[in-house]
Amino acid sequence: MPHITVPEGLPGIRGPLALRPDIAKPLSGLAEVLMRSENSLSHGERELIGTYVSSLNECFFCTHAHGGVAQHYLQCDTSFIDGVKKDYQSTTLSEKMKSLLSIAASVQKGGKSVTSKQIENAKSIGITDMEIHDTVLIASMFCMFNLYVDGLNTWAPQDTDFYINRAKQIADTGYSITNAR
Amino acid sequence: MPHITVPEGLPGIRGPLALRPDIAKPLSGLAEVLMRSENSLSHGERELIGTYVSSLNECFFCTHAHGGVAQHYLQCDTSFIDGVKKDYQSTTLSEKMKSLLSIAASVQKGGKSVTSKQIENAKSIGITDMEIHDTVLIASMFCMFNLYVDGLNTWAPQDTDFYINRAKQIADTGYSITNAR
Repeated sequence: MPHITVPEGLPGIRGPLALRPDIAKPLSGLAEVLMRSENSLSHGERELIGTYVSSLNECFFCTHAHGGVAQHYLQCDTSFIDGVKKDYQSTTLSEKMKSLLSIAASVQKGGKSVTSKQIENAKSIGITDMEIHDTVLIASMFCMFNLYVDGLNTWAPQDTDFYINRAKQIADTGYSITNAR
Repeated sequence: MPHITVPEGLPGIRGPLALRPDIAKPLSGLAEVLMRSENSLSHGERELIGTYVSSLNECFFCTHAHGGVAQHYLQCDTSFIDGVKKDYQSTTLSEKMKSLLSIAASVQKGGKSVTSKQIENAKSIGITDMEIHDTVLIASMFCMFNLYVDGLNTWAPQDTDFYINRAKQIADTGYSITNAR
């Protein structure tokens, strides 16, 4: 049961955000620009970073919600997403994505865990400052979402098909206020 | 040295945000509504929650930037803020603030660390659902800021007077894009 009363039937972050449209607006605006504006990281790559960080934080709702969206964008199956969460180094992901996931994992441990060596390695294979910036902020933002969702003990459907089935709609409509994840 | 090239002379979060005005807008909008819109938690109380969480994350910039603003609003001296960071239970803070800081500290450890007992205790002394909501989200948001600021290894002035001296201006102008903390 959620720690506070939220509208019934709204999963995860959507419950508390329904209480506070004044907050939902900038929060969903942040997700929209960071996850979906045009840049050199694809939508699927950004969703995968968010999924991975959420899995490290053991946030069921965010892991499955964004895992579903990543799977939709990357046109892969669930076992690939599960493999990334379990051991991304042994997947067929690009060296670039492995480097960015390594940085994201360090952010999840604590900002100071990101090392100069990780950054040097990333730059040596052509990763740009902006890609490093976005990866650090995506990881940080997902930590916020994970803490918010679990700190209020929000409701999350346990049937993982729920998340797969809604992924296309989220990909189509984005993170607007009316469809805030 | 920051992990990525940011404009020189901008402390903490202001450096990377200067690179990305598209992101600065919703991020500062979130801080503005959560920290400064009218509600039953005072500006000083909300800044104190952010300061405490930042100190738990050992983020020098955010701890001192928001500690300075909290000190300004609460009209206290630095030793009081230091006392809260060190052991808030032994300060003269209200039972309400002690209860909220306890919840904020649990969020910083991980969302699932917030217990039903903490929530029951809070409600038993008259803390509202919305105050619990805002405390959980403020703590989560500051974790994001702390990870972003330290994950990019941003520059932070070491002279703590710097933060005290700029606090009034931040309190006067708020967290707009042109003065994003």
